[in-house]
Amino acid sequence: MKIIIVGATGTMGKYLVSAFEKEHEVVRVASNGGDIRSDITSAASIENLFRQTGAFDALISTAGPTYVGPWINLTDKTFRKGVEGKMMGQINLVLIGQHYINPKGSFTLISGALTYDPQINFANASAANGAVEAFVRAAAIELQMGIRINAVSPTVIENSPQYFPYFPGDIPVTMQQLEYGFRKSVFGANTGQVIRPY
Amino acid sequence: MKIIIVGATGTMGKYLVSAFEKEHEVVRVASNGGDIRSDITSAASIENLFRQTGAFDALISTAGPTYVGPWINLTDKTFRKGVEGKMMGQINLVLIGQHYINPKGSFTLISGALTYDPQINFANASAANGAVEAFVRAAAIELQMGIRINAVSPTVIENSPQYFPYFPGDIPVTMQQLEYGFRKSVFGANTGQVIRPY
Repeated sequence: MKIIIVGATGTMGKYLVSAFEKEHEVVRVASNGGDIRSDITSAASIENLFRQTGAFDALISTAGPTYVGPWINLTDKTFRKGVEGKMMGQINLVLIGQHYINPKGSFTLISGALTYDPQINFANASAANGAVEAFVRAAAIELQMGIRINAVSPTVIENSPQYFPYFPGDIPVTMQQLEYGFRKSVFGANTGQVIRPY
Repeated sequence: MKIIIVGATGTMGKYLVSAFEKEHEVVRVASNGGDIRSDITSAASIENLFRQTGAFDALISTAGPTYVGPWINLTDKTFRKGVEGKMMGQINLVLIGQHYINPKGSFTLISGALTYDPQINFANASAANGAVEAFVRAAAIELQMGIRINAVSPTVIENSPQYFPYFPGDIPVTMQQLEYGFRKSVFGANTGQVIRPY
Protein backbone atom coordinates (compact mmCIF):
# COMPACT_ATOMS: atom_id res chain seq x y z
CA MET A 1 0.00 0.00 0.00
CA LYS A 2 1.28 3.47 -0.85
CA ILE A 3 0.74 5.67 2.22
CA ILE A 4 1.36 9.42 2.34
CA ILE A 5 2.14 10.67 5.85
CA VAL A 6 1.75 14.44 6.22
CA GLY A 7 3.58 15.86 9.22
CA ALA A 8 6.13 13.08 8.85
CA THR A 9 8.90 14.84 10.79
CA GLY A 10 6.77 15.61 13.88
CA THR A 11 6.45 13.55 17.05
CA MET A 12 3.48 11.54 15.80
CA GLY A 13 4.58 11.44 12.18
CA LYS A 14 8.03 10.01 12.89
CA TYR A 15 6.53 7.21 14.96
CA LEU A 16 3.96 6.34 12.30
CA VAL A 17 6.54 6.38 9.51
CA SER A 18 8.62 3.93 11.49
CA ALA A 19 5.57 1.74 12.20
CA PHE A 20 4.27 1.59 8.63
CA GLU A 21 7.40 1.69 6.45
CA LYS A 22 8.29 -1.93 7.21
CA GLU A 23 5.36 -3.24 5.21
CA HIS A 24 4.28 -0.30 3.03
CA GLU A 25 5.59 2.32 0.67
CA VAL A 26 5.58 5.46 2.81
CA VAL A 27 5.88 8.95 1.34
CA ARG A 28 7.02 11.35 4.04
CA VAL A 29 5.62 14.87 3.67
CA ALA A 30 6.53 17.80 5.93
CA SER A 31 6.79 21.58 5.88
CA ASN A 32 10.49 21.10 6.39
CA GLY A 33 12.23 17.83 5.57
CA GLY A 34 10.79 14.45 4.57
CA ASP A 35 10.61 13.17 1.00
CA ILE A 36 8.41 16.04 -0.24
CA ARG A 37 8.01 19.48 1.27
CA SER A 38 4.53 20.95 1.41
CA ASP A 39 2.93 23.91 3.14
CA ILE A 40 -0.60 22.69 3.88
CA THR A 41 -1.81 26.24 4.57
CA SER A 42 -1.54 26.76 0.80
CA ALA A 43 -3.96 25.01 -1.56
CA ALA A 44 -1.44 25.50 -4.38
CA SER A 45 1.26 23.76 -2.35
CA ILE A 46 -1.11 20.84 -1.66
CA GLU A 47 -1.98 20.53 -5.34
CA ASN A 48 1.74 20.51 -6.09
CA LEU A 49 2.25 17.81 -3.46
CA PHE A 50 -0.19 15.40 -5.10
CA ARG A 51 1.23 16.10 -8.53
CA GLN A 52 4.50 14.75 -7.15
CA THR A 53 3.09 11.75 -5.25
CA GLY A 54 0.70 10.69 -7.99
CA ALA A 55 -1.89 8.04 -7.13
CA PHE A 56 -1.84 6.68 -3.58
CA ASP A 57 -3.85 4.36 -1.32
CA ALA A 58 -3.94 6.15 2.02
CA LEU A 59 -3.18 9.58 3.38
CA ILE A 60 -2.44 10.05 7.08
CA SER A 61 -2.26 13.57 8.43
CA THR A 62 -0.71 14.44 11.79
CA ALA A 63 -0.28 18.09 10.83
CA GLY A 64 -2.11 20.39 13.17
CA PRO A 65 -0.71 23.89 13.70
CA THR A 66 -2.98 25.92 16.02
CA TYR A 67 -2.59 28.99 18.22
CA VAL A 68 -1.81 28.05 21.82
CA GLY A 69 -1.80 30.85 24.35
CA PRO A 70 -3.76 33.11 26.66
CA TRP A 71 -7.41 33.65 25.74
CA ILE A 72 -6.89 37.42 25.88
CA ASN A 73 -4.52 37.13 22.90
CA LEU A 74 -7.04 35.12 20.89
CA THR A 75 -8.23 37.45 18.12
CA ASP A 76 -9.42 37.12 14.55
CA LYS A 77 -5.73 37.24 13.58
CA THR A 78 -4.28 34.64 15.97
CA PHE A 79 -7.32 32.37 15.42
CA ARG A 80 -6.26 32.02 11.79
CA LYS A 81 -3.32 29.80 12.75
CA GLY A 82 -5.69 26.92 13.51
CA VAL A 83 -8.16 27.83 10.77
CA GLU A 84 -5.52 27.75 8.04
CA GLY A 85 -3.44 24.98 9.65
CA LYS A 86 -5.20 22.16 11.43
CA MET A 87 -8.62 22.92 9.92
CA MET A 88 -8.37 24.09 6.28
CA GLY A 89 -4.94 22.51 5.82
CA GLN A 90 -6.38 19.07 6.53
CA ILE A 91 -9.69 19.72 4.78
CA ASN A 92 -7.85 20.82 1.65
CA LEU A 93 -5.72 17.65 1.77
CA VAL A 94 -9.04 15.81 1.26
CA LEU A 95 -10.76 18.20 -1.17
CA ILE A 96 -7.69 18.16 -3.42
CA GLY A 97 -6.36 14.67 -2.62
CA GLN A 98 -9.68 13.00 -3.59
CA HIS A 99 -8.75 13.62 -7.22
CA TYR A 100 -5.51 11.61 -6.85
CA ILE A 101 -6.40 8.82 -4.38
CA ASN A 102 -7.05 5.29 -5.63
CA PRO A 103 -10.55 3.75 -5.37
CA LYS A 104 -11.13 2.30 -1.89
CA GLY A 105 -8.37 4.55 -0.56
CA SER A 106 -8.60 6.32 2.78
CA PHE A 107 -7.94 9.66 4.41
CA THR A 108 -7.15 9.77 8.13
CA LEU A 109 -6.95 13.19 9.76
CA ILE A 110 -5.87 14.21 13.26
CA SER A 111 -8.27 15.86 15.71
CA GLY A 112 -8.04 15.54 19.49
CA ALA A 113 -9.91 15.35 22.79
CA LEU A 114 -10.07 19.17 22.96
CA THR A 115 -13.19 18.98 20.78
CA TYR A 116 -15.20 17.86 23.81
CA ASP A 117 -12.76 18.41 26.65
CA PRO A 118 -11.45 21.96 26.36
CA GLN A 119 -8.37 23.23 28.20
CA ILE A 120 -7.26 26.75 29.07
CA ASN A 121 -5.14 28.23 26.22
CA PHE A 122 -6.40 25.78 23.57
CA ALA A 123 -9.69 27.25 22.27
CA ASN A 124 -8.25 27.58 18.77
CA ALA A 125 -7.43 23.86 18.67
CA SER A 126 -10.89 22.96 20.01
CA ALA A 127 -12.56 24.84 17.16
CA ALA A 128 -10.24 23.34 14.53
CA ASN A 129 -10.84 19.84 15.91
CA GLY A 130 -14.60 20.33 15.94
CA ALA A 131 -14.51 21.46 12.33
CA VAL A 132 -12.34 18.51 11.27
CA GLU A 133 -14.53 15.92 13.01
CA ALA A 134 -17.79 17.28 11.57
CA PHE A 135 -16.15 17.53 8.14
CA VAL A 136 -15.08 13.89 8.37
CA ARG A 137 -18.68 12.79 9.02
CA ALA A 138 -19.95 14.94 6.14
CA ALA A 139 -17.22 13.91 3.67
CA ALA A 140 -17.87 10.23 4.41
CA ILE A 141 -21.31 10.45 2.74
CA GLU A 142 -19.97 12.42 -0.23
CA LEU A 143 -16.72 10.68 -1.24
CA GLN A 144 -17.09 8.33 -4.19
CA MET A 145 -15.57 4.99 -5.30
CA GLY A 146 -15.37 3.51 -1.82
CA ILE A 147 -13.01 6.18 -0.56
CA ARG A 148 -13.13 6.35 3.22
CA ILE A 149 -12.33 9.09 5.75
CA ASN A 150 -11.85 9.05 9.52
CA ALA A 151 -10.20 11.14 12.21
CA VAL A 152 -8.01 9.93 15.05
CA SER A 153 -8.59 11.84 18.28
CA PRO A 154 -5.98 11.30 21.00
CA THR A 155 -5.61 13.12 24.30
CA VAL A 156 -2.14 14.46 25.11
CA ILE A 157 0.58 12.25 23.59
CA GLU A 158 3.05 10.18 25.63
CA ASN A 159 6.02 11.52 23.66
CA SER A 160 5.05 15.21 24.14
CA PRO A 161 5.63 15.70 27.88
CA GLN A 162 5.98 19.45 27.38
CA TYR A 163 2.18 19.54 27.04
CA PHE A 164 1.37 17.52 30.18
CA PRO A 165 1.01 20.62 32.43
CA TYR A 166 -1.73 21.96 30.13
CA PHE A 167 -3.77 18.74 30.37
CA PRO A 168 -4.09 18.14 34.11
CA GLY A 169 -5.29 14.66 34.90
CA ASP A 170 -5.36 13.50 31.30
CA ILE A 171 -3.87 10.04 30.95
CA PRO A 172 -1.42 10.34 28.04
CA VAL A 173 -2.10 8.24 24.97
CA THR A 174 0.84 5.95 24.28
CA MET A 175 2.51 6.06 20.88
CA GLN A 176 1.39 2.47 20.32
CA GLN A 177 -2.25 3.38 21.07
CA LEU A 178 -1.94 6.23 18.59
CA GLU A 179 -0.53 3.86 15.99
CA TYR A 180 -3.44 1.48 16.57
CA GLY A 181 -5.89 4.34 15.99
CA PHE A 182 -4.38 5.06 12.59
CA ARG A 183 -4.20 1.33 11.78
CA LYS A 184 -7.91 1.00 12.50
CA SER A 185 -8.69 3.78 10.05
CA VAL A 186 -6.26 2.82 7.27
CA PHE A 187 -6.71 -0.96 7.30
CA GLY A 188 -10.28 -1.21 8.67
CA ALA A 189 -13.51 -0.64 6.75
CA ASN A 190 -15.16 2.15 8.76
CA THR A 191 -15.79 5.64 7.44
CA GLY A 192 -16.98 8.90 8.97
CA GLN A 193 -15.68 7.86 12.39
CA VAL A 194 -13.76 9.70 15.08
CA ILE A 195 -11.44 7.05 16.50
CA ARG A 196 -10.40 7.54 20.14
CA PRO A 197 -7.46 5.16 20.61
CA TYR A 198 -7.71 4.82 24.37
CA MET B 1 -32.35 43.23 29.46
CA LYS B 2 -30.60 44.66 26.41
CA ILE B 3 -30.43 41.91 23.79
CA ILE B 4 -28.57 42.16 20.49
CA ILE B 5 -29.99 39.87 17.80
CA VAL B 6 -27.62 39.33 14.88
CA GLY B 7 -29.33 38.07 11.75
CA ALA B 8 -32.46 39.94 12.84
CA THR B 9 -34.04 40.09 9.39
CA GLY B 10 -33.73 36.35 8.66
CA THR B 11 -36.34 33.65 9.26
CA MET B 12 -35.12 32.81 12.75
CA GLY B 13 -34.10 36.37 13.65
CA LYS B 14 -37.48 37.91 12.83
CA TYR B 15 -39.28 35.37 15.00
CA LEU B 16 -36.91 35.90 17.93
CA VAL B 17 -37.13 39.68 17.67
CA SER B 18 -40.89 39.40 17.87
CA ALA B 19 -40.70 36.99 20.82
CA PHE B 20 -38.24 39.01 22.88
CA GLU B 21 -39.07 42.64 22.13
CA LYS B 22 -42.21 42.60 24.26
CA GLU B 23 -40.20 42.37 27.46
CA HIS B 24 -36.69 43.43 26.49
CA GLU B 25 -34.74 46.10 24.67
CA VAL B 26 -33.86 44.40 21.39
CA VAL B 27 -31.18 45.74 19.03
CA ARG B 28 -31.73 44.31 15.57
CA VAL B 29 -28.52 43.72 13.60
CA ALA B 30 -28.39 42.48 10.03
CA SER B 31 -26.24 42.67 6.93
CA ASN B 32 -29.07 44.56 5.30
CA GLY B 33 -31.77 46.27 7.35
CA GLY B 34 -32.43 46.17 11.09
CA ASP B 35 -31.37 48.90 13.53
CA ILE B 36 -27.67 48.52 12.80
CA ARG B 37 -26.04 47.08 9.70
CA SER B 38 -23.02 44.84 10.18
CA ASP B 39 -21.05 42.46 7.98
CA ILE B 40 -19.96 39.71 10.38
CA THR B 41 -17.37 38.44 7.89
CA SER B 42 -15.38 41.58 8.76
CA ALA B 43 -13.81 41.96 12.20
CA ALA B 44 -13.71 45.73 11.65
CA SER B 45 -17.43 45.79 10.95
CA ILE B 46 -18.10 43.80 14.15
CA GLU B 47 -15.94 46.19 16.18
CA ASN B 48 -17.92 49.06 14.68
CA LEU B 49 -21.18 47.28 15.58
CA PHE B 50 -20.32 47.09 19.29
CA ARG B 51 -19.12 50.70 19.34
CA GLN B 52 -22.65 51.58 18.27
CA THR B 53 -24.53 49.23 20.63
CA GLY B 54 -22.36 49.94 23.66
CA ALA B 55 -22.79 47.68 26.69
CA PHE B 56 -25.37 44.90 26.43
CA ASP B 57 -26.63 41.88 28.37
CA ALA B 58 -27.12 39.20 25.75
CA LEU B 59 -26.14 38.55 22.18
CA ILE B 60 -28.11 36.10 20.06
CA SER B 61 -26.73 35.11 16.68
CA THR B 62 -28.78 33.41 13.99
CA ALA B 63 -26.34 34.42 11.26
CA GLY B 64 -24.92 31.47 9.44
CA PRO B 65 -23.93 31.88 5.81
CA THR B 66 -22.40 28.67 4.43
CA TYR B 67 -21.82 27.13 1.01
CA VAL B 68 -24.63 24.77 0.02
CA GLY B 69 -24.15 22.78 -3.13
CA PRO B 70 -22.66 19.75 -4.84
CA TRP B 71 -19.60 18.24 -3.16
CA ILE B 72 -17.69 18.44 -6.43
CA ASN B 73 -17.90 22.25 -6.23
CA LEU B 74 -16.58 22.29 -2.68
CA THR B 75 -13.08 23.76 -2.92
CA ASP B 76 -10.80 25.84 -0.75
CA LYS B 77 -12.54 28.87 -2.26
CA THR B 78 -16.21 27.87 -1.81
CA PHE B 79 -15.45 26.45 1.66
CA ARG B 80 -14.55 29.98 2.78
CA LYS B 81 -18.21 31.02 2.76
CA GLY B 82 -18.87 29.00 5.91
CA VAL B 83 -15.44 29.64 7.40
CA GLU B 84 -15.81 33.41 7.20
CA GLY B 85 -19.59 33.41 7.78
CA LYS B 86 -21.09 30.93 10.21
CA MET B 87 -17.75 30.03 11.82
CA MET B 88 -15.41 33.05 12.14
CA GLY B 89 -18.30 35.54 11.91
CA GLN B 90 -19.87 34.09 15.05
CA ILE B 91 -16.54 33.44 16.79
CA ASN B 92 -15.51 37.06 16.19
CA LEU B 93 -18.84 38.27 17.64
CA VAL B 94 -17.64 36.64 20.88
CA LEU B 95 -13.92 37.51 20.73
CA ILE B 96 -14.77 41.18 20.12
CA GLY B 97 -18.11 41.37 21.94
CA GLN B 98 -16.61 40.10 25.22
CA HIS B 99 -15.05 43.55 25.63
CA TYR B 100 -18.48 45.23 25.50
CA ILE B 101 -20.81 42.74 27.23
CA ASN B 102 -21.96 43.34 30.81
CA PRO B 103 -20.83 40.99 33.62
CA LYS B 104 -23.05 37.89 33.75
CA GLY B 105 -24.06 38.52 30.14
CA SER B 106 -24.46 35.73 27.60
CA PHE B 107 -23.62 34.84 24.03
CA THR B 108 -25.85 32.39 22.16
CA LEU B 109 -24.66 31.19 18.77
CA ILE B 110 -26.41 29.09 16.14
CA SER B 111 -25.09 25.68 15.06
CA GLY B 112 -27.27 22.83 13.79
CA ALA B 113 -27.81 19.09 13.62
CA LEU B 114 -25.46 18.83 10.62
CA THR B 115 -22.57 18.64 13.10
CA TYR B 116 -23.47 15.03 13.82
CA ASP B 117 -26.05 14.28 11.15
CA PRO B 118 -24.55 15.29 7.81
CA GLN B 119 -26.59 15.72 4.63
CA ILE B 120 -25.55 15.71 0.99
CA ASN B 121 -24.58 19.26 -0.15
CA PHE B 122 -24.01 20.59 3.38
CA ALA B 123 -20.42 19.60 4.31
CA ASN B 124 -19.42 23.24 4.66
CA ALA B 125 -22.15 23.84 7.24
CA SER B 126 -21.20 20.66 9.12
CA ALA B 127 -17.62 21.89 9.51
CA ALA B 128 -18.71 25.39 10.56
CA ASN B 129 -21.15 23.95 13.11
CA GLY B 130 -18.52 21.62 14.52
CA ALA B 131 -16.13 24.53 14.95
CA VAL B 132 -18.77 26.71 16.60
CA GLU B 133 -19.84 23.98 19.06
CA ALA B 134 -16.28 23.13 20.10
CA PHE B 135 -15.48 26.85 20.40
CA VAL B 136 -18.50 27.33 22.67
CA ARG B 137 -17.24 24.62 25.02
CA ALA B 138 -13.73 26.11 25.03
CA ALA B 139 -14.85 29.73 25.45
CA ALA B 140 -17.06 28.76 28.40
CA ILE B 141 -13.98 27.96 30.51
CA GLU B 142 -12.16 31.14 29.41
CA LEU B 143 -14.77 33.93 29.59
CA GLN B 144 -14.54 36.04 32.74
CA MET B 145 -17.01 37.85 35.05
CA GLY B 146 -19.72 35.24 34.82
CA ILE B 147 -20.16 35.68 31.09
CA ARG B 148 -21.81 32.60 29.59
CA ILE B 149 -21.87 31.09 26.12
CA ASN B 150 -24.01 28.40 24.50
CA ALA B 151 -25.08 27.27 21.05
CA VAL B 152 -28.58 26.38 19.88
CA SER B 153 -28.61 23.46 17.45
CA PRO B 154 -31.89 22.91 15.58
CA THR B 155 -32.60 20.53 12.72
CA VAL B 156 -34.34 22.02 9.69
CA ILE B 157 -36.65 24.89 10.67
CA GLU B 158 -40.44 24.79 10.36
CA ASN B 159 -40.50 28.16 8.59
CA SER B 160 -37.91 27.19 5.96
CA PRO B 161 -39.77 24.56 3.91
CA GLN B 162 -37.46 25.19 0.95
CA TYR B 163 -34.86 23.13 2.86
CA PHE B 164 -37.13 20.15 3.68
CA PRO B 165 -36.10 18.13 0.56
CA TYR B 166 -32.46 18.28 1.68
CA PHE B 167 -33.25 16.84 5.13
CA PRO B 168 -35.24 13.67 4.36
CA GLY B 169 -37.00 12.33 7.41
CA ASP B 170 -35.92 15.15 9.70
CA ILE B 171 -38.80 16.35 11.85
CA PRO B 172 -38.74 20.15 11.50
CA VAL B 173 -38.10 22.17 14.65
CA THR B 174 -41.01 24.52 15.28
CA MET B 175 -40.33 28.23 15.66
CA GLN B 176 -41.54 27.99 19.24
CA GLN B 177 -39.10 25.17 20.01
CA LEU B 178 -36.34 27.31 18.53
CA GLU B 179 -37.40 30.25 20.69
CA TYR B 180 -37.33 28.02 23.78
CA GLY B 181 -33.78 26.96 22.92
CA PHE B 182 -32.64 30.56 22.89
CA ARG B 183 -34.64 31.33 26.05
CA LYS B 184 -32.85 28.49 27.84
CA SER B 185 -29.47 29.94 26.94
CA VAL B 186 -30.23 33.63 27.56
CA PHE B 187 -32.28 33.34 30.76
CA GLY B 188 -30.87 30.08 32.19
CA ALA B 189 -27.57 29.61 34.00
CA ASN B 190 -25.83 27.01 31.84
CA THR B 191 -22.65 27.64 29.89
CA GLY B 192 -20.64 25.69 27.33
CA GLN B 193 -23.75 23.79 26.23
CA VAL B 194 -25.12 22.83 22.84
CA ILE B 195 -28.89 23.14 23.27
CA ARG B 196 -31.01 20.90 21.04
CA PRO B 197 -34.53 22.34 21.29
CA TYR B 198 -36.42 19.21 20.30
